Amino acid sequence: MNIQLLLTGNELMTGDIVDSNSAMIAQQLLELGITVSKKVTVGDNLEALVEQLRQQAQQADVLLVNGGLGPTCDDLTAEALARLTNSELVEHPDALSHLRQWCENRGTALNKANHKQAMLPQGAQIIPNHCGSAVGIKVHYGNCEILCTPGVPSELKAMMEQTLIDAIRQKIDPSQSMLLHRIHTFGLGESGLQQWISDQLPGWPEIVGLGFRAGSPSLEIKLQTPVHAAAEHQLWIQKLQQLIGNYIVAEGHGSLNQSLVNLLKQQGKTLTTAESCTGGLIASKITEIPGSSAVFEAGYVTYSNTIKSQMLGVEKQVIDDHGAVSEAVVRQMAEGALKNSGADYVIAVSGVAGPDGGTADKPVGLVWLAWGDSDEIKAATLFFPYGRKTFQTMTAGAGMDLIRRHIQGIEEVPRYLKERQSPKTGQ
Amino acid sequence: MNIQLLLTGNELMTGDIVDSNSAMIAQQLLELGITVSKKVTVGDNLEALVEQLRQQAQQADVLLVNGGLGPTCDDLTAEALARLTNSELVEHPDALSHLRQWCENRGTALNKANHKQAMLPQGAQIIPNHCGSAVGIKVHYGNCEILCTPGVPSELKAMMEQTLIDAIRQKIDPSQSMLLHRIHTFGLGESGLQQWISDQLPGWPEIVGLGFRAGSPSLEIKLQTPVHAAAEHQLWIQKLQQLIGNYIVAEGHGSLNQSLVNLLKQQGKTLTTAESCTGGLIASKITEIPGSSAVFEAGYVTYSNTIKSQMLGVEKQVIDDHGAVSEAVVRQMAEGALKNSGADYVIAVSGVAGPDGGTADKPVGLVWLAWGDSDEIKAATLFFPYGRKTFQTMTAGAGMDLIRRHIQGIEEVPRYLKERQSPKTGQ
Repeated sequence: MNIQLLLTGNELMTGDIVDSNSAMIAQQLLELGITVSKKVTVGDNLEALVEQLRQQAQQADVLLVNGGLGPTCDDLTAEALARLTNSELVEHPDALSHLRQWCENRGTALNKANHKQAMLPQGAQIIPNHCGSAVGIKVHYGNCEILCTPGVPSELKAMMEQTLIDAIRQKIDPSQSMLLHRIHTFGLGESGLQQWISDQLPGWPEIVGLGFRAGSPSLEIKLQTPVHAAAEHQLWIQKLQQLIGNYIVAEGHGSLNQSLVNLLKQQGKTLTTAESCTGGLIASKITEIPGSSAVFEAGYVTYSNTIKSQMLGVEKQVIDDHGAVSEAVVRQMAEGALKNSGADYVIAVSGVAGPDGGTADKPVGLVWLAWGDSDEIKAATLFFPYGRKTFQTMTAGAGMDLIRRHIQGIEEVPRYLKERQSPKTGQ
Repeated sequence: MNIQLLLTGNELMTGDIVDSNSAMIAQQLLELGITVSKKVTVGDNLEALVEQLRQQAQQADVLLVNGGLGPTCDDLTAEALARLTNSELVEHPDALSHLRQWCENRGTALNKANHKQAMLPQGAQIIPNHCGSAVGIKVHYGNCEILCTPGVPSELKAMMEQTLIDAIRQKIDPSQSMLLHRIHTFGLGESGLQQWISDQLPGWPEIVGLGFRAGSPSLEIKLQTPVHAAAEHQLWIQKLQQLIGNYIVAEGHGSLNQSLVNLLKQQGKTLTTAESCTGGLIASKITEIPGSSAVFEAGYVTYSNTIKSQMLGVEKQVIDDHGAVSEAVVRQMAEGALKNSGADYVIAVSGVAGPDGGTADKPVGLVWLAWGDSDEIKAATLFFPYGRKTFQTMTAGAGMDLIRRHIQGIEEVPRYLKERQSPKTGQ
């Protein structure tokens, strides 16, 4: 089935708002195994809107239109539908009674602006809106069903869940639906991973669609397979899991920080952080997870050398001898944080976030990390020369991934510890 | 000039990512006075991509294409351009040398997947990418200039700022251009601000376009005026600045955290943070600003009561008497952080981020803040019952805004300290 989206609104064309509605619609459709085939956005211009409706309705089986149902003069969807279908705008009794009820519930009278929302193209059906004044509109054009929805995200979401998803589900052949699985990894690049899969899993079947999404800091792998090939779907998920197992930080809707909090909760253990160059980012990623207070009590943001000594007991002599960005210093930061907080596990980082502060030996992008517990603290250096924010995000990700591996008892050294070395400090 | 956007990527069609790139592009073009006339998104499907390129290139003077330049097999932009222009993909020497340099800087060899990024349509020009492996591609098709940009937001942004905006500026008639000014505020709502302006600045001229963009945590005001009305533009900017002066946290491309760091630098002063419910978010927002090490040395993330006592000297009895979310506790947190760090200024926060942990007296969304210096510490409570992440973002914003007002010597109590009170603790 060909489903397309048409979004309308000047605020989308100027970038004054970021469109999250279309992602929400697409995610709901994806659960039915349907991928939207085209998404178009136009401003509040009647002629452009009519022409775009015509073009997409000629291609699509279902055209979902979002926006332009409001009471103001720049809300043009009903008028555009009337032009498209060569019909008149007429007062629709169900729409009118919805609007009367809506106004009554709010203790106001139906004004002229709102009355406009009852004027629909002749022959249109309404789609109920339980959360707002704007009813949805359903019309047919050729072989296409056009479904118009309100731009307010909460009203759109309710209309999708209460009416449209069921209506669309009835149109699809259940044997055509798709299976979907997501795997989140840390430390693998898109091209390296693709190469690894080509080399190690030859004969990957075309029916199991493989997609990648490079995020910061993780890389998501998505497998999508028609429901009739469910056995192949499972088989190749398992093969992939076996190949990259240690790099998997989460599956489904999870994330690295969520997995780390879950892991600590399962073990009844706590974690502390000693952060220089990430300035609290690791602590804030952990504490954005609900329930993280069970596993996280204390975080130390030690930006200056004096504070590293004072808060974490890093020896001044060690800083003088090795510099703040060094194995010796992150080890002492980790030890100090473990001791002061009484936590079970620790992540410590010290690096050169830039843009200033780099030297020949210690360039911008270089970071030392230490992680572990009171039995063993490990340390390593990484190099992320990609600008301050990306450096901080990647360093925070690496810290969380390294302690995840430690907690899970993974002995294997991850590739990224070898691959992402500064040319100056390469070991 | 007709400028259109074409975005490509299955992850956009499935809603796996919310497209923020097109809003970023649109906002940058708006600075030139240009509004995008159509925006289309298609998946990673070669035929659909070629057909869409053709359709839009026939309509537009400039077609900005985003995405599909990566190393994997679902990155199809170069191939689609070759098909469109009836040309072959050939190894482009400049693209190849860029890729070699890119790999060398990272200490890796050029692999086969990356080599694909050097294969461009015959006759194409490259657009430099200083932040990533994918060079941009420029080709002509009929009267349309097609400019292809990478999907990674940071790479796209740099390419727009460093090359494309200037190239597009040269195509437009200077007398048609628009003046644009942005004012960032904290603590004002959109409808409240609109009412305030209507009441206090009657006669606002239609030629000075006024727009609002509600972000988290700030509200941006946008004034846009044709260049021939420059005097009116300046006049109404000034009137607005006079009206809402104390709420302005930044103008132009600034932000609240950037302004706070600038202010501290100008005064040669330092700031420390004592965070419970925000878990390091305030420290990380400050330290994401380049050069923040001059003004920020130490941050304390004290999630548990024990750690509040141990790290900041909060008395156990005070916690027992008042609870961790209380004026007495945040005041002691602020005092402890000031004393331990030796900083000039402090922000301390303790609140109920939720979703659990709320009580009748202290519901989810309630937070106490303390801020000031060794002469005076102020405290206040706020109520942000909007979910954990929004609560944390708004609380961090309020903390930074309150210390900004303190440092700037603003005596007036901001409206939000009165308006955003919990019904249970309303004072």
